[in-house]
Amino acid sequence: MGMTMSQKILADKAGLERVSPGELVYAGVDLVLGNDITTPVAIREYKNAGCGEVFDRDKIAIVLDHFTPNKDIKAAELCVSCRDFASAKGITHFYDVGSMGIEHALLPEQGLVAAGELVVGADSHTCTYGALGAFSTGFGSTDMAAAMATGKCWFKVPAALRFELTGAPKKWVSGKDVILHIIGRIGVDGALYRSMEFTGDGIQHLSMDDRFTIANMAIEAGAKNGIFPVDGRTRAYLKGRVSRPYKEYQADPDAAYEKTYTIDLSALEPTVAFPHLPENAHPVSEAQGIRIDQVIIGSCTNGRISDLAAAAEVLHGRHVAKGVRAIVIPATQQIYLEAMKAGYLETFIQAGCAVSTPTCGPCLGGHMGIMAAGERTVATTNRNFVGRMGHVQSEVYLASPAVAAASAVRGSICAPDTLE
Amino acid sequence: MGMTMSQKILADKAGLERVSPGELVYAGVDLVLGNDITTPVAIREYKNAGCGEVFDRDKIAIVLDHFTPNKDIKAAELCVSCRDFASAKGITHFYDVGSMGIEHALLPEQGLVAAGELVVGADSHTCTYGALGAFSTGFGSTDMAAAMATGKCWFKVPAALRFELTGAPKKWVSGKDVILHIIGRIGVDGALYRSMEFTGDGIQHLSMDDRFTIANMAIEAGAKNGIFPVDGRTRAYLKGRVSRPYKEYQADPDAAYEKTYTIDLSALEPTVAFPHLPENAHPVSEAQGIRIDQVIIGSCTNGRISDLAAAAEVLHGRHVAKGVRAIVIPATQQIYLEAMKAGYLETFIQAGCAVSTPTCGPCLGGHMGIMAAGERTVATTNRNFVGRMGHVQSEVYLASPAVAAASAVRGSICAPDTLE
Repeated sequence: MGMTMSQKILADKAGLERVSPGELVYAGVDLVLGNDITTPVAIREYKNAGCGEVFDRDKIAIVLDHFTPNKDIKAAELCVSCRDFASAKGITHFYDVGSMGIEHALLPEQGLVAAGELVVGADSHTCTYGALGAFSTGFGSTDMAAAMATGKCWFKVPAALRFELTGAPKKWVSGKDVILHIIGRIGVDGALYRSMEFTGDGIQHLSMDDRFTIANMAIEAGAKNGIFPVDGRTRAYLKGRVSRPYKEYQADPDAAYEKTYTIDLSALEPTVAFPHLPENAHPVSEAQGIRIDQVIIGSCTNGRISDLAAAAEVLHGRHVAKGVRAIVIPATQQIYLEAMKAGYLETFIQAGCAVSTPTCGPCLGGHMGIMAAGERTVATTNRNFVGRMGHVQSEVYLASPAVAAASAVRGSICAPDTLE
Repeated sequence: MGMTMSQKILADKAGLERVSPGELVYAGVDLVLGNDITTPVAIREYKNAGCGEVFDRDKIAIVLDHFTPNKDIKAAELCVSCRDFASAKGITHFYDVGSMGIEHALLPEQGLVAAGELVVGADSHTCTYGALGAFSTGFGSTDMAAAMATGKCWFKVPAALRFELTGAPKKWVSGKDVILHIIGRIGVDGALYRSMEFTGDGIQHLSMDDRFTIANMAIEAGAKNGIFPVDGRTRAYLKGRVSRPYKEYQADPDAAYEKTYTIDLSALEPTVAFPHLPENAHPVSEAQGIRIDQVIIGSCTNGRISDLAAAAEVLHGRHVAKGVRAIVIPATQQIYLEAMKAGYLETFIQAGCAVSTPTCGPCLGGHMGIMAAGERTVATTNRNFVGRMGHVQSEVYLASPAVAAASAVRGSICAPDTLE
């Protein structure tokens, strides 16, 4: 029996000929990631364990993105802890306010992840980098401490599910719609500890940003990781960002998949996940007319340049409905700059949106758009759990940037092509 | 004995021929202002008192600017209270996220204040509008409730101090330096319940933004209000913003001033107020070399377009020092747009600044740049009290945008002309 793409990466990184699902392996990692929430806990454990220097100061990334710019004193203290540690250990890839962005948009942008690499991060959406053909997964702060000290991690080799994507998506159907559809089909535990391996001729029609969005939300189906094959778009993305050699893995023809799902991209509609789980996916037509108070366009899931481009296309020459707050959060400083140069930010301001500096902000109920009881947001973020964006009696509907932007204009949930 | 400019406005609004210092008068107001912190308290009192309709729905402004976009659930609840009230009472000038800005920059910009008007606001920096030749002053939330119901307010007529400004300020000396110098000279209670009336040929050299900054900080010397005579610059500012007739008041030649201070603007240096009072004013040279962690450029004091222009001039082609976070907060959506079109925002991003959506944010320790113990910020804001921007063991140095920007580049406090 052959190996999947994910299994091959794990085997190589563990120095093994082959690995099998369920096997425990000890593998060397290419990058260890932490943010302003998880890193301080890791630092405490690191110190408690009496660790000295980090395994490789060039292979650790610390990104202050969650509660920054500091929302309160506690947030400020967490950042101080990260700054002091990064300085003491000489961490090369330390990203503070002004240099930063949301970790999962920032790391690929800065060339810190390449195809075939093994990336671990103390943040559940670390699985994002599977878009580049890397094996990447989230872990806990204690794991982060150990990984910073040793450069290695224990993994239970995951079994795999195959998602065969076919056809080309229609206008206004994006990566977000693809992954919401998939999670709707298999459920939030539908890929529990499995690799979600995406294949098929439909992938060629998905931009890198679409792929980042899809891999990002693999965790929302419970997956250990999500991963895409490397193709011309991947190589084009890596070119100019990554100068070190990287390896393109391919699943063996006889790799074992517990199940194969076929998704006809051309049949998908813009999709909305109703409260309070990402699996509550519905075609946008079924959500039509649901009144909203707020729209959030941003996050590690959908704050990239093509997300902002889609939102700007919808908002251009239009205005946010009375009674709706629309907050746009470019995911990184570079995306912010690019969106400004492309005129998107001007479109947003003219349309009556607030444009925030990069931050995770409201996605996890941090700041920059928290809801009171009874309020409802359409968000391009990744989770719509109870109380995720504020009060336990508030609601989050997950959608694409295009649907979020259209809903902001209408004042209720709608598809972009239903606007006058 | 004649009347001062402030006294004349009060007399007219009270329907009296003349008023004298210390006299209590009941005057009709032209505008009542509240924000997301003070308005909810006013609403509660308004309801407790059994008030029905507001006195004039076109003469109340409610601006959600302090903890917005909502930093937490409590902030969200305050905003809901304001929204519901504004909607129920049909308040014309209600400014929410996306349409908003910091109240004291927004109201003049939107033409809600004209020369000769009497403006009251449940925010201490309501005195800002004195720059336009209006009598404006802060009051409490209970007063706001009464004013919304009746359109009238009790005032004790203030005595006055005269500030004779002469000469033209040097490059890099702005309104902020003028007012910090004055407060340094007279102290934080130096104008207690007095009007600060600015006169002299130096005023012609002060832009409207300089005057807004100066009037804004009159409260930091304890003044009831600060006020400027109306001149060509005032009229040019009001043109296109205010279509209703307005009245230009002038102090009587024999108006009584308790004291006259003469300030030679040409002799002033860029000025910095050390912790923990605005009166601790020093020439920037005496602050030179003090290491900083953060820079905040914004607020109702210094978040206007010429403030951003000055900061951009300093930051153009330069970069924020390693270890310093620089946060730029345009005061209104219109200023944000103008700064973007002028290229200032691009300069800020290229220099490594975070650019925030308009909010009071860190100025009052709300969000968007709060400090931990031991941290130090140079801020263009108005107060450097203990714990004002975070932990009680953090420090705020008040300065102009130019000094703040230069300090961000150097990593320690310095004058713009000392940068290479």
